[in-house]
Amino acid sequence: MTDVERWKARAAHAALDHVRSGMIVGLGTGSTALHMVRELGRRLATHEVQDVRGVATSVATERLAREAKVPLIDLPADGVDVAIDGMDEVTTTLDAIKGLGGAFTREKIVAAAAKRFLLIGDRTKQVAFLGDRAPVPVEVVAFGWRRTAELLRALGADPVLRTERGEPVVTDNGQVVIDCRMRGGFDAPAFAAAADALPGVVAHGLFLGMTERAFLAGPDGIEELVAPGRAVEPGSGAAGATGRA
Amino acid sequence: MTDVERWKARAAHAALDHVRSGMIVGLGTGSTALHMVRELGRRLATHEVQDVRGVATSVATERLAREAKVPLIDLPADGVDVAIDGMDEVTTTLDAIKGLGGAFTREKIVAAAAKRFLLIGDRTKQVAFLGDRAPVPVEVVAFGWRRTAELLRALGADPVLRTERGEPVVTDNGQVVIDCRMRGGFDAPAFAAAADALPGVVAHGLFLGMTERAFLAGPDGIEELVAPGRAVEPGSGAAGATGRA
Repeated sequence: MTDVERWKARAAHAALDHVRSGMIVGLGTGSTALHMVRELGRRLATHEVQDVRGVATSVATERLAREAKVPLIDLPADGVDVAIDGMDEVTTTLDAIKGLGGAFTREKIVAAAAKRFLLIGDRTKQVAFLGDRAPVPVEVVAFGWRRTAELLRALGADPVLRTERGEPVVTDNGQVVIDCRMRGGFDAPAFAAAADALPGVVAHGLFLGMTERAFLAGPDGIEELVAPGRAVEPGSGAAGATGRA
Repeated sequence: MTDVERWKARAAHAALDHVRSGMIVGLGTGSTALHMVRELGRRLATHEVQDVRGVATSVATERLAREAKVPLIDLPADGVDVAIDGMDEVTTTLDAIKGLGGAFTREKIVAAAAKRFLLIGDRTKQVAFLGDRAPVPVEVVAFGWRRTAELLRALGADPVLRTERGEPVVTDNGQVVIDCRMRGGFDAPAFAAAADALPGVVAHGLFLGMTERAFLAGPDGIEELVAPGRAVEPGSGAAGATGRA
């Protein structure tokens, strides 16, 4: 395992300590979430936790959860207790960009349905400003995508259809992804609202004000960031906005 | 042909008078748009208009246009010259509800891409307030639809999954439709913005501020309504906000 993989695994395990027996857990997608799903399977096998059921945010995670013997259910009407997922970029106030994996619409549906949304990743994902390195991915209805790309350009984006081996990438929902490299002076909440209002947009990868805490692992351990104004978990003993586990 | 069918055809023909040779035309979906597509085919066959190409808003309209020999293209990046479509409800200020046909997401993508958006229908579709009779349909990602229905309920809707013979209706985009019967005190712009911001929502059937004019046919002819503040077409000679053709 490389250093970065070891860090990802550590962050995943730290977040999983918030999963208790009987909970319904949103299972994220991607290389960091993979560690989380496997570790959850291990904890269920050893009875460290019991009666936990997962909601998979992608076809890939569904497969992974079956391998790890994590029982799966459909997203219930009243949501999930906690959702854990990776990210491409996260700020100190826990706004995030997700979507390199292409599963961000389902991830966002589950995150929005979670009483608590936890991000996991390695320290390299922390940025001063959203859009610093990652583009904002936007899932758009395949019908008329060229027009939707133009409307995104009018909102200040430099839009590129996501392709793989020359073919448009098709999401689990059967739609396409437009990666929006943002120009200077990017106002994330304004772009989010304007993009949401476009009829061709299904969802975008901006996760604003949704995260309760983030676990960022690096060479000197795990940094735990708590979103401003978010209630600290009862009994956790955490006092400040950041702490080290 | 019943009276209502005759009225629908008349409204469709009146709107088509705004289609000139060389234009790209958004072709709506439904029983009124059907008359429009057939009449456009007839006018092309008789060379009353030439070199008109259509953008179909549904698989059904695509089939219809092929039968009527209206040449079709994909929605271009720079949109269409005019789009013509039916509706379920329209107010005197030309806000509308569309979606009984289930094609409203594509219809909205095309309407938003149109320099001019024209509504056609019979007089019975005119209402004092949106939601008077029709529910607001919302196309939602099939994944997690039960949760999205709950979030729509929290916005003041009474949400019902659209079914046909006991099975969920699947849209041309592969998603499902939740019909939202609205409770009293329904604030359409507020609901529209809040619904758009839900990660599971693809699009909703509220067409607010999008329409330039509406052609409503009834027993005493066609009433032509022009949206407040919309430029009157050069040379049309129309002066007021409403007129009779």
